[in-house]
Amino acid sequence: MTNTSVHSHTPHQEHHLHSSDFISDIVIGMSDGLTVPFALAAGLSGAVANSSLVVTAGIAEIVAGSIAMGLGGYLAGRTEADHYSSELRREINEVETVPEREKEEVREIFADMGLSPALQITIADELSKDKAKWVDFMMKYELGLDEPDPNRATKSALTIGLSYVVGGLIPLSPYFLISNPFDSLLYSCGITLICLFVFGYFKSKVTDQPPVAGAFKVMVIGALAAAAAFGVAKLIS
Amino acid sequence: MTNTSVHSHTPHQEHHLHSSDFISDIVIGMSDGLTVPFALAAGLSGAVANSSLVVTAGIAEIVAGSIAMGLGGYLAGRTEADHYSSELRREINEVETVPEREKEEVREIFADMGLSPALQITIADELSKDKAKWVDFMMKYELGLDEPDPNRATKSALTIGLSYVVGGLIPLSPYFLISNPFDSLLYSCGITLICLFVFGYFKSKVTDQPPVAGAFKVMVIGALAAAAAFGVAKLIS
Repeated sequence: MTNTSVHSHTPHQEHHLHSSDFISDIVIGMSDGLTVPFALAAGLSGAVANSSLVVTAGIAEIVAGSIAMGLGGYLAGRTEADHYSSELRREINEVETVPEREKEEVREIFADMGLSPALQITIADELSKDKAKWVDFMMKYELGLDEPDPNRATKSALTIGLSYVVGGLIPLSPYFLISNPFDSLLYSCGITLICLFVFGYFKSKVTDQPPVAGAFKVMVIGALAAAAAFGVAKLIS
Repeated sequence: MTNTSVHSHTPHQEHHLHSSDFISDIVIGMSDGLTVPFALAAGLSGAVANSSLVVTAGIAEIVAGSIAMGLGGYLAGRTEADHYSSELRREINEVETVPEREKEEVREIFADMGLSPALQITIADELSKDKAKWVDFMMKYELGLDEPDPNRATKSALTIGLSYVVGGLIPLSPYFLISNPFDSLLYSCGITLICLFVFGYFKSKVTDQPPVAGAFKVMVIGALAAAAAFGVAKLIS
């Protein structure tokens, strides 16, 4: 459930993503929240006699999943911020102490873009005149790092965790009301598949994908996970 | 449990990441696999009388979680590939039909880097001489996209799913052998916390973080999730 810990973004796309980090976190949390507790409840419905046990297991899963995902998101955010600070210190130091090597690195970046050696040298000379701008350039284009929002980690943790809880309570809700787990399962399937479809539709809109196809994909994943969990739990119980 | 669907990488870091996509997938799958089934089993241990029910719920969770994460990873990979192809077609078309606008976009990229207007024009003129190189430049630096590995989606799905299963079976193993769930929980805590520590150590090594601090962080998340699930399940059962 870690989301960005081992990945980073282009400066260009990062700009675009900043405005939708919040929505991206909701998608991450709710996607799993709707799917995993739904499948777990479905699995247990084929194996136990009373809904109250499904509720207990479902709530335990929601608590476990939201903490694992929320804290995972928090640590990923903190790691990103720490990484940025330490790389920034290093670049500032390198521009001061080994400027020629840093200029060579600038030239290499433009060589990778396919520019001529003469142009590479002109650019490196121009960039290195302003040290603040130069460090900024190295952070963005050598390392691909943007300055992270200092409150991102906390906001991300809360958004992902709460979205998981909200998503998870939807498939579980019939089990609170109906004591026969198989009857609860029928209602749970109906409600959850509709919610997965609607959620998949908006998720696809946000990530710029064909919305109806995306809605079906999300719904099918949920249905497959639930069917598999039901089958396996029935087999071993 | 989607991992890369709404994010993308810099060309520079992507190069570095390609070699460790496999390891990154293992980390994603095992991180959740060790944590969530562990916490679910812990939660149920405080609420049920027999280990066999913990095993049923745990297996159902592992099936549900591995499918949700594996298929999630597969779809994220497919979406990335589709997105690349459609953007590539668009850039090829734009370079042919609206070259002046595309040259303006090249200039804007270098304006963002802090280069002078004269240099921006020189670079745009040079790049636009070779159309293949030009399209390649726009894909990488305007859109921040790298050509994805065509088999990435399938490999990613299998790696994430299997890592989740392997991770999930570790905390569950004592419940297979010991019928009293509370006794099983003690062994499960011992084994899983050690595994989380070892896993956190290697995860931190791979993501270039301080390994011992990272190992403690991963272990603490697992312990918190398990303790919270245990407490909440005890309260409601």
